Amino acid sequence: MTERRTVNVSVVGATGLVGREMLRLLDSRDFPVDTLRAFASERSEGTTVWSGEHMVEVEALSREALLATGSGLVLASAGKAVSALLREWVRGTDLVVVDNSSAFRMDPAVPLVVPEVNPDATAGHEGYIANPNCTTTPLAVVLSAVRNLAGLEEVFVATYQSVSGAGNKAMEELAHQTMSLLTEQEVETEVFPHRIAFNLIPQIGDVRSDGYTEEERKVVDESRKILGMPDLIVSCTAVRVPTFACHGEAVHLVTKEDVSRDALVLALGNAPGITVLDAPREFVYPMPINTVEAEDVFVGRVRKHPDKPCTYDLWIVADNLWKGAALNSLQIAERLLADGRL
Amino acid sequence: MTERRTVNVSVVGATGLVGREMLRLLDSRDFPVDTLRAFASERSEGTTVWSGEHMVEVEALSREALLATGSGLVLASAGKAVSALLREWVRGTDLVVVDNSSAFRMDPAVPLVVPEVNPDATAGHEGYIANPNCTTTPLAVVLSAVRNLAGLEEVFVATYQSVSGAGNKAMEELAHQTMSLLTEQEVETEVFPHRIAFNLIPQIGDVRSDGYTEEERKVVDESRKILGMPDLIVSCTAVRVPTFACHGEAVHLVTKEDVSRDALVLALGNAPGITVLDAPREFVYPMPINTVEAEDVFVGRVRKHPDKPCTYDLWIVADNLWKGAALNSLQIAERLLADGRL
Repeated sequence: MTERRTVNVSVVGATGLVGREMLRLLDSRDFPVDTLRAFASERSEGTTVWSGEHMVEVEALSREALLATGSGLVLASAGKAVSALLREWVRGTDLVVVDNSSAFRMDPAVPLVVPEVNPDATAGHEGYIANPNCTTTPLAVVLSAVRNLAGLEEVFVATYQSVSGAGNKAMEELAHQTMSLLTEQEVETEVFPHRIAFNLIPQIGDVRSDGYTEEERKVVDESRKILGMPDLIVSCTAVRVPTFACHGEAVHLVTKEDVSRDALVLALGNAPGITVLDAPREFVYPMPINTVEAEDVFVGRVRKHPDKPCTYDLWIVADNLWKGAALNSLQIAERLLADGRL
Repeated sequence: MTERRTVNVSVVGATGLVGREMLRLLDSRDFPVDTLRAFASERSEGTTVWSGEHMVEVEALSREALLATGSGLVLASAGKAVSALLREWVRGTDLVVVDNSSAFRMDPAVPLVVPEVNPDATAGHEGYIANPNCTTTPLAVVLSAVRNLAGLEEVFVATYQSVSGAGNKAMEELAHQTMSLLTEQEVETEVFPHRIAFNLIPQIGDVRSDGYTEEERKVVDESRKILGMPDLIVSCTAVRVPTFACHGEAVHLVTKEDVSRDALVLALGNAPGITVLDAPREFVYPMPINTVEAEDVFVGRVRKHPDKPCTYDLWIVADNLWKGAALNSLQIAERLLADGRL
């Protein structure tokens, strides 16, 4: 009987929506944790978080506190400013950071990883690995499967993003605004620039000089990097919708080779990390209500354009806190462990 | 002083969401109504509806009752079965039907009209004119402006459609389900195939053998007919979202000529029926909350693709009950009147 190797794990941003899911998944996926520590900002110090049945006291994040662990995994989801600190702190140590923030995703020295797509990108990591944007990860899983079957020329995606992508307070805001509207009380807006209840906000992130938002640009740049296709034509319109969990994506794509709809559905169904839900006549397709807290990327409404070869439409839903964030980070860590890179 | 010509007007489907807006707009737009009558099914007989301050008693629809008016306008929004009757009934009479149902939209003998785009299509009408689908009309207004500037090769649209497109009961269902969820009560589903509150349903209409829904196909066929471009490549993914009013559309399009973003914005702003709301850095863009009960089609987030010529992304919102249905029908009638075709 071989002994199972265990590693120390620190979760940074442990009180946030993604941090809490990281803690939960560490337990439910039976990750071989030695010492588990939870870090957040000073105002959360001394509060407790849970990893399954294990209660962990939250520590205030500092260089000294984090490095005291010596070696192991740091799962981070605490924003760009913290990421910059983490990257400096772990340099030259035996700690490996898997970070959910966008701070260094496009840095050529930082692997940006979706395990189903580019697991080998972790080779030669310098202690810091980036987890992609919550919309990009599910899209990349699907695009990879399409590319492997028929090549890929062009992708247009319109997103339907839930408020949980904007954190705890955004979820409270949707609930509170909705109740206010249904009971004819005044609506207060704080997290989003406009009311989100029963509304659509076609802006996620700051607006760049070319008119695309940062969120839309992430989908372009990160998809190219993960797929290793720097010239892939990608375009995105990102919209916030009044749902609590899971992001939807309407995807229009052009392949290099013309394949049948059936061949595409088969390839998607056989690809790792994808579940095909595609029986629309029986009202079966991915929706937030049937994909929340599910591990896979769900694909349905797969259609081949009747007039134009190599052209397809499909619909994706994935849990933005799971495959879009915490789960993918943990899957990266599992892969690092399996490859002896942690 | 010339006397203003007045016409008799019958609204068929007067108790439905669209019928009520037709009645309301007849008054607010000061349509020159002589006698106003309201028709619905037998179970609504004797109830009352309002056109501004004018109360109208609802009559049960029958051939005899409708034709008793002799001449004038019939504004209809009562479903496909009623449309088939209406078309037969008015044949050879002096009544002209403007119908919001999809029954005869693709009939070559029936004009399908968006007044800003193809007003002359009403010439030689045979007493029956069709109003396009609620998603198609706003899209056609925008596509026409783009085509006039730069030509048009290809269009992909992802829709964000409010529940009012599915009628009174659908609006009640969203409100009721939402309240049930916020108060932890059981959710009942009747109108939609799944819960719509805090969810996304990627199916509107029946599913065809090629996998596209009837709603998606309408956008393709009707856009081609209205624009007079039978070979235009159009693709659509139609999604129901938990909003009460207005439909959003994320549009990706390819033109024949490469024009600047500024030129496109200018052309859209100068086109009839369009208001450009495009200052995303100041959080200005079309949303349901700022376009409900507004007449125009609202366009924002206009972007020129940085890597591919002739390629643009933009975002449309319009009130599906107004420009998407009742208002466009009334604008058709106004045009008929101005052209002496009514």
